[in-house]
Amino acid sequence: MTRTATSAHPLDVALELEPVGDGTVTGRTTAAYANMVGPFGGITAATMLSAALRHPERLGDPVSLTVNFAGPVADGPFTIDARPTRTNNSTQHWTIEMTQDGVVATTATAVFALRRDSWTSTEVAPPAAPGAESVEPTPGPEFIRWMSNYDMRFVDGGLTDIDGERGDSTTTLWIRDNPARALDFPGLTAMCDSFYPRVFLRRGQMCPAGTVSLTIYFHVDADTLSEQGDDAVLATARAQHFGRSYFDQSAELWGRGGALLATSHQVMYFKV
Amino acid sequence: MTRTATSAHPLDVALELEPVGDGTVTGRTTAAYANMVGPFGGITAATMLSAALRHPERLGDPVSLTVNFAGPVADGPFTIDARPTRTNNSTQHWTIEMTQDGVVATTATAVFALRRDSWTSTEVAPPAAPGAESVEPTPGPEFIRWMSNYDMRFVDGGLTDIDGERGDSTTTLWIRDNPARALDFPGLTAMCDSFYPRVFLRRGQMCPAGTVSLTIYFHVDADTLSEQGDDAVLATARAQHFGRSYFDQSAELWGRGGALLATSHQVMYFKV
Repeated sequence: MTRTATSAHPLDVALELEPVGDGTVTGRTTAAYANMVGPFGGITAATMLSAALRHPERLGDPVSLTVNFAGPVADGPFTIDARPTRTNNSTQHWTIEMTQDGVVATTATAVFALRRDSWTSTEVAPPAAPGAESVEPTPGPEFIRWMSNYDMRFVDGGLTDIDGERGDSTTTLWIRDNPARALDFPGLTAMCDSFYPRVFLRRGQMCPAGTVSLTIYFHVDADTLSEQGDDAVLATARAQHFGRSYFDQSAELWGRGGALLATSHQVMYFKV
Repeated sequence: MTRTATSAHPLDVALELEPVGDGTVTGRTTAAYANMVGPFGGITAATMLSAALRHPERLGDPVSLTVNFAGPVADGPFTIDARPTRTNNSTQHWTIEMTQDGVVATTATAVFALRRDSWTSTEVAPPAAPGAESVEPTPGPEFIRWMSNYDMRFVDGGLTDIDGERGDSTTTLWIRDNPARALDFPGLTAMCDSFYPRVFLRRGQMCPAGTVSLTIYFHVDADTLSEQGDDAVLATARAQHFGRSYFDQSAELWGRGGALLATSHQVMYFKV
């Protein structure tokens, strides 16, 4: 599925960061990843992680990332301060903060590690799905600009299923960047936030909803992740509980050969 | 199950914090919640949350909490700096840092909110279990001191099941504080970290293991949580993936009347 790009991939453009000294970088939102208001949360999460990944003192690969969406991110420039709060022999802990005009827009923490060989077992199983090639892609609505950067092939709980109440909030899809791009940690991070809010599927209609906190556990190191190439990822998400204006959803992202690349959890605000 | 305590509950003693100005508090570890090395992670998580809960600028109830165990917590005094990074109309974001002798031991972020009525649905179901009264409590091993502060009644995957490999890492138990104590957010937070590492159950033996990051989503506000009283909580946990020295486990904590009190996720280091 490789395509030849004549210029930088939109994801790499969105992740361009300029060091301004002492672990601080600056960047700017891009129109390609615009959501209805401000940027797609997944691109913000990927940008926060990138600030740590490119930090000169970075140790190892990300094991966990938590991003808190503290307030709206305005279209335009932002500053990210990434600080290694503690570096041990094989682990490193990060506190990361995005500001715009001195106001905190997003906070994050991350754990990085030099991962070692160990006993391996995947206890959960991937969802049943036909091959990506045999599922038709569904374009997102035009007014949600960031969705055009993904090729999404829904196996269950697709966009056209937001139509009448249902008892199960599961969505399963094949997803890859469009144009195709070799998967790396920022790309995988953005994909973890690419599921539309589960409340849409349960209620059969769109409503105000937004992620307040997103956590990702990475189950592969950089070498293993690079083996994924630009293959489609089999992604599945489901909610646990809706109530008092918040709900949580959990996701699994499966790669080539049935490798679990990441598990992800988030809590969202909603208004119904 | 209420008992009359003649002095403060050990949990409340462990959570004693003294304000020293500007959102900073000091406290000290207690022998009652000692783990094999340093304090039980759940008590550290509960202490981090308490620093925000008792902050004079605190808004609403916790919706999410992420605690990163950056390094060992030494027995003795600690300092916690809790900072509201952004306060909106109905949400508040926190960055919290615990230091000992100026070295970062633990970091956390939290989201608090004034929760409003909304559509409600619990999509997951509680695990099958007989009533707490009909299950015998299992005392933890004496060398794990903090376990004596819990009444644990295992329904599945108990301590005595750490004996030979098995394919499923599920543990389900009834748990309450011992002596009994009305459940509140710090108490619930500590319980979210009370499951022994899932790798013990899969491998049938203990091994070096420790939580590096813990995330909790709270599904009740303070009023609803207070209705739980000191009833036992039905708690269940299971792992997703083990590999390259880390694994993740997810948990649900169910309260009176089948109310989902919290979902919780963590990633642990292990050595096998």
